[in-house]
Amino acid sequence: MARVLVIGGDAAGMSAAASLRRRLPEAYEVVVLERGEWTSYSACGIPYWIAGEVEGPDDLVARTPEEHRKNGVDLRTGTEAVSIDLEAREVEAKDLASGEVERIAFDALVIATGAEPLRPDLPGIDGEGILGVQSIDDGQRVLDALEHDPQQVVVVGSGYVGLEMAEAFVVRGISTTVVEKAPVPLSIIEPSLGEKVAEAMRGRGIELRTGAGVEGFELDDDGHVRGVVVDGEAMPADLVVLGLGVRARSDLAADAGLPTGVKGGIVTDARQRVAGVDRIWAAGDCVETRDRTTDLPVHLPLGTHANKQGMVVADDVVATLLEVPNRLTFPGVVQTAITKFCALEISRTGLGEKQATDAAFDPVVVTIQTSDRAGYMPESGEMTVLLVADRGSRRMLGLQVVGTENAGLRVDAAATAITAGMTVDDVVMLDLAYAPPFASVWSPIQVAARAAVKALDA
Amino acid sequence: MARVLVIGGDAAGMSAAASLRRRLPEAYEVVVLERGEWTSYSACGIPYWIAGEVEGPDDLVARTPEEHRKNGVDLRTGTEAVSIDLEAREVEAKDLASGEVERIAFDALVIATGAEPLRPDLPGIDGEGILGVQSIDDGQRVLDALEHDPQQVVVVGSGYVGLEMAEAFVVRGISTTVVEKAPVPLSIIEPSLGEKVAEAMRGRGIELRTGAGVEGFELDDDGHVRGVVVDGEAMPADLVVLGLGVRARSDLAADAGLPTGVKGGIVTDARQRVAGVDRIWAAGDCVETRDRTTDLPVHLPLGTHANKQGMVVADDVVATLLEVPNRLTFPGVVQTAITKFCALEISRTGLGEKQATDAAFDPVVVTIQTSDRAGYMPESGEMTVLLVADRGSRRMLGLQVVGTENAGLRVDAAATAITAGMTVDDVVMLDLAYAPPFASVWSPIQVAARAAVKALDA
Repeated sequence: MARVLVIGGDAAGMSAAASLRRRLPEAYEVVVLERGEWTSYSACGIPYWIAGEVEGPDDLVARTPEEHRKNGVDLRTGTEAVSIDLEAREVEAKDLASGEVERIAFDALVIATGAEPLRPDLPGIDGEGILGVQSIDDGQRVLDALEHDPQQVVVVGSGYVGLEMAEAFVVRGISTTVVEKAPVPLSIIEPSLGEKVAEAMRGRGIELRTGAGVEGFELDDDGHVRGVVVDGEAMPADLVVLGLGVRARSDLAADAGLPTGVKGGIVTDARQRVAGVDRIWAAGDCVETRDRTTDLPVHLPLGTHANKQGMVVADDVVATLLEVPNRLTFPGVVQTAITKFCALEISRTGLGEKQATDAAFDPVVVTIQTSDRAGYMPESGEMTVLLVADRGSRRMLGLQVVGTENAGLRVDAAATAITAGMTVDDVVMLDLAYAPPFASVWSPIQVAARAAVKALDA
Repeated sequence: MARVLVIGGDAAGMSAAASLRRRLPEAYEVVVLERGEWTSYSACGIPYWIAGEVEGPDDLVARTPEEHRKNGVDLRTGTEAVSIDLEAREVEAKDLASGEVERIAFDALVIATGAEPLRPDLPGIDGEGILGVQSIDDGQRVLDALEHDPQQVVVVGSGYVGLEMAEAFVVRGISTTVVEKAPVPLSIIEPSLGEKVAEAMRGRGIELRTGAGVEGFELDDDGHVRGVVVDGEAMPADLVVLGLGVRARSDLAADAGLPTGVKGGIVTDARQRVAGVDRIWAAGDCVETRDRTTDLPVHLPLGTHANKQGMVVADDVVATLLEVPNRLTFPGVVQTAITKFCALEISRTGLGEKQATDAAFDPVVVTIQTSDRAGYMPESGEMTVLLVADRGSRRMLGLQVVGTENAGLRVDAAATAITAGMTVDDVVMLDLAYAPPFASVWSPIQVAARAAVKALDA
């Protein structure tokens, strides 16, 4: 009996495990170790669960442990991988309920340990009521805290998780403050667009404190948070949500001597094989990947990449174990992201200005305002599109959109164009969908591309 | 004084003229002959004007004759070009009010005569109340007819104009029948998707008669339409709108000996220069262009192409007259189209199955149902995506979408991928926007691409 061992039961791990179980003969065991009790869940859906828009947590689970087991995956929940022995090709696994430790041998190992929310080492950080939102259990803890009717929530950080959580609290009618170190929220977009997000947040009654670093937390006698210290002053808070981003949970791999990179993620090749070792793969939020334009490492913990990488892993494990040709590789990303704050859609793809400069491009940045449909149509909404192009090659490097209805998904065409290495001149001549309810004769990304052409030719 | 003469004052002609006026020195006259009284208007907006959603007709006009004149364009409305003398390099122009004819010499000629609605040569076709919807005047005639409170409108043809007009009448609460020769409406999409459009039409109370050829029209004693003869039987109608498509208005060019092609449009090169003659350009609905995948001629009368071609013409006229380098070419189209019927969005790009077969591809067609957002989100809508791939090269050849909110514009990414020659495998690995309100972890076009991969590998 040969064994494929998967560490981690969320998107990357379970998509790999499910695919492996389908494709490998019975003679191969597919064993998955998962610390928690949930599998294949959508962490991205947690804010909508907390907002009360989604029935949770079951609705967030694409496939339950029972379903995976029924499909023949030997899924061990409540089991944590505590170390990897590369020599012996074994993983030490701890049953979290009993404390028992078992060594499990593997023929192939898939590491999919995910990411964990950043918890800065600040005074009071371990107080009650200071929560992250990475797992279903995290989400449940926030919902439990809401049972106690918090008067004042503080969201620390204004990345997309921070933003989505702030919306969730606003939807629930809870007084919400967002504290952000940078001068504008949502650093995944350029500051000029971030200002529009700031406006929308304030418009919905959120107190937005930018340029404000959190120095610590005040706790009451029961050890529960009662304040967030910002600029030497405590602002009241009876619930704090940390939206400071995440880091790759790569310690287990690193402790075993596996390579991690500058972004803190496990380093793999395009088949998701861990660099320098035999028959060990890694996928999902615990790895770093490459930007397709710059070929530089990036860490982008998103379910969409995790699913794709899990699929690539499964394909290459099968190729390796069964000695059949590999068919799939993960080509990297173009850093596409989308979110919304209430009615405002926000998206980006490719490089921002600084990223472009850092990658030795000579960026030209243009920003245009346009309508989401023909200007004469009723209810037409404004959108702002920012485009980054390279002066020398005229390539479109990045595109960012902030606007209402029909705005966000415009980045998909831009992501495709950037992947194909198109110039802004190419983009101007793309045959994009036109009809009055959907666009003016020039699609918003083409309005931006024309502005870029003009700037490049000036 | 050198003169650039433009025939036609809508999208292609006026975008060329406006750009030429900006870029050519004062020593060049830019003269435009326009038969009607309107310039630079959105024919595509006419159905929304008739529906009462858009204030018309002024709102449909991007730039008025006065504005063009103020910018220095010598715009002659009410003036029809009746012949082109290639030898003398003159155009014979008739003042429609006075009947006077003048010969106007040109150094450069731009033909932008547009398209005209097909009016089949059927008994009664010239009756009152049988209208096309190509020009603002056409639109006004339909609105005038609505003043007489028609009891029964018949729309002949169910292309997107027919569909949009049917919606306009339904919105106005008028009993509407759509007659279509084919077995399903909207031939720009595959019949399997057309069925969904048929359902939606019937759901909104439209009587849809498919497989029904119109044989003629019954007129009352005043010569006004009172019935449409279909399959030997007259159905009552006091207003008939023809949505049978358009043909390139290329007679003027053809009569002068200029080349027209298999699709009936004027034939040009990628700079929009009319093949085989010096310093004559053509652009917009009167030309045929090329499909970028097949390199075969197509006639796609859309404002978006007209605007781009007008821009290309202006660039090349300037390059030619001022002896500067040409910068722009029109690379052809991928046959992208989008429309909606009430809440149903409908779009396509690339080749349909038959087009693919005709172009010697070996098409594999897959159809999937998916959600427009993560399945657990509230109000998530269904969409159907049909994908055409080539068996040999695995290239994505075409994509069609029918669905609610957030469905239609998905084709933009597919249009870009088709332009770049991507395979379905490439599409699966694209970094498209993912967040629960916008897509599941696989974007709808990737769900379709994965189904295509599966079909190709089967």
